[in-house]
Amino acid sequence: MGLDYRVRCCPDGLVTDRRRRIRVLDCTIRDGGICNDWHFDEDLVSRTAAALDEAGVDYMEIGYRSRDGAFSREKNGAWRFCDEATLRRVLPERRRMKVAVMLDVGKADPEDIPARGESVIDVVRIATYAHQLDEALRLKDRAQSQGYETFMNVMAVSTLDPHEVDACLKRLAVSGVDNVALVDSFGALFPYHVRYLVRKYMNYLGEGIKVGVHLHNNQQQAFANSIAAIDEGVDFVDATVHGMGRGAGNCPLELLLFYLDNPRYDVRPILELVDEYATMRDELRWGYHLPYAITGFFNVHPRAGIERMSRPERYECRDMYEKLSHRLDQEAKEAI
Amino acid sequence: MGLDYRVRCCPDGLVTDRRRRIRVLDCTIRDGGICNDWHFDEDLVSRTAAALDEAGVDYMEIGYRSRDGAFSREKNGAWRFCDEATLRRVLPERRRMKVAVMLDVGKADPEDIPARGESVIDVVRIATYAHQLDEALRLKDRAQSQGYETFMNVMAVSTLDPHEVDACLKRLAVSGVDNVALVDSFGALFPYHVRYLVRKYMNYLGEGIKVGVHLHNNQQQAFANSIAAIDEGVDFVDATVHGMGRGAGNCPLELLLFYLDNPRYDVRPILELVDEYATMRDELRWGYHLPYAITGFFNVHPRAGIERMSRPERYECRDMYEKLSHRLDQEAKEAI
Repeated sequence: MGLDYRVRCCPDGLVTDRRRRIRVLDCTIRDGGICNDWHFDEDLVSRTAAALDEAGVDYMEIGYRSRDGAFSREKNGAWRFCDEATLRRVLPERRRMKVAVMLDVGKADPEDIPARGESVIDVVRIATYAHQLDEALRLKDRAQSQGYETFMNVMAVSTLDPHEVDACLKRLAVSGVDNVALVDSFGALFPYHVRYLVRKYMNYLGEGIKVGVHLHNNQQQAFANSIAAIDEGVDFVDATVHGMGRGAGNCPLELLLFYLDNPRYDVRPILELVDEYATMRDELRWGYHLPYAITGFFNVHPRAGIERMSRPERYECRDMYEKLSHRLDQEAKEAI
Repeated sequence: MGLDYRVRCCPDGLVTDRRRRIRVLDCTIRDGGICNDWHFDEDLVSRTAAALDEAGVDYMEIGYRSRDGAFSREKNGAWRFCDEATLRRVLPERRRMKVAVMLDVGKADPEDIPARGESVIDVVRIATYAHQLDEALRLKDRAQSQGYETFMNVMAVSTLDPHEVDACLKRLAVSGVDNVALVDSFGALFPYHVRYLVRKYMNYLGEGIKVGVHLHNNQQQAFANSIAAIDEGVDFVDATVHGMGRGAGNCPLELLLFYLDNPRYDVRPILELVDEYATMRDELRWGYHLPYAITGFFNVHPRAGIERMSRPERYECRDMYEKLSHRLDQEAKEAI
């Protein structure tokens, strides 16, 4: 029984079977942690991990592993560091899902990556900007030689010129990395952008490297862009419980699991979690808000939106829009 | 200068020029009114009308015109009735935009439609379910003979069988109506559904009848579905300020105007309004919430979601999901 038996007006068979091959990576604690400086208590992370595992989610990205001294341990919660002992306390002892941590280029030390046998971690994902790719590949090499699956996120692709994207992909294609995500850090992309880029990523990276997407929701496109990517044949999709994530947040895991309609996944444990995360959202205010929509539209970092959101009474979005328009006009003039 | 100069990674020319032919219908007061029983004060409606007109929005659907006695004047605000005198007080005297009111089949009397010359109304839009089409066409005939442009919304198309959709469209094609909207009342559709249906609507209705979309956001697809519809060549799109509307709400007008990237429209007056509507959203709670996502997924009326949202502590979405799953399984068995 497929999706369309619910929507009666459309004949069956319009949905591509590609959704059945998708693997799901949850990054609620890692990316959602940007909203609360990773101050999730261990009990919530433990219940989140159990629910993700029960739901059949394939990967749980549980936080960043950061170099000692790179961040304050007072200001930041445990999931900014992902000490081995902490992870062991919260992860179900027997689990189907794989556990990933993210390494941020410049904030992580290759020497801190233990041998796979000494860790509960299965996957090391490296977050890099295009201009840091040398360092990112060194981290990747080290993680691989220590025995991990390696994933690579090249951030803010929407700000690169096409030839810069090509150059990154050419290097990644011969790097031996296992998995590369198309990352829309600013929530600037529409489905036609995603389709174009996914095709490009898949063409450059070839059969041996899996391709995924990590998409933000500034213009309410995170889930729609995921659907476009699935339709183009990606291997995996990132999502978070109730869309928790910086600014406008991510693709909501619950919507993705509904859509995949795959008996491999059971959305019900996630639905229980959402009740709890919905309460957090009232306080932390991720999701659709106009200041984030404006940064997405202008293809800039969400920090300008976060600043407006912290204003007590009004966001003054017209003012924000006019300033960004002016800046863009100036840049366009200078580029001539 | 097109959209893609902002998103650098994609070459220009990927965006279809079809977005430049789109006309915009705002239904903030009419559809948003379902959230607050049309209790908008006249000052806000007046400022909304002025901003829409200044922004270049083509149509403002300002409320329902209802038969005397069909609804309580105590419980419902003025925009449930749209008395001529009220409309005259709030609308800018000189305006470019056209003013529409909605007539709900069964709640409106053909005899209440005044001659066009006696009214500030330009457009009469009729909301009907497929099985009420006879009555809807009588209202349409009356409105047309009184001199109005006539629009028709066949609601909840996602619950019809394909042959029922065909039958409606065949009748509408020869009805003389000016404009027909594809209406996703339950927020059940994905872009591939919308593309299929828009093609069908356009094929049946031919050159003489304009086609639009009215889409709900239960699964975060209202704007993405609008983009898909634009790409297929529709003539107009419905939207509301900050997505205000029943349950998960509608396509946000501000996102749509960003996307259209047409000098005909100026989004800035709308951005000022959003500051104010954002405050209302905190109280009225339209937008993405899991109970509405579940009704969208199951293709049922949002009332079950609205009931869950009114529960004080937790939505108990797992329970809601399991009950709707069970009901669907029963219906599937009975259908065999």
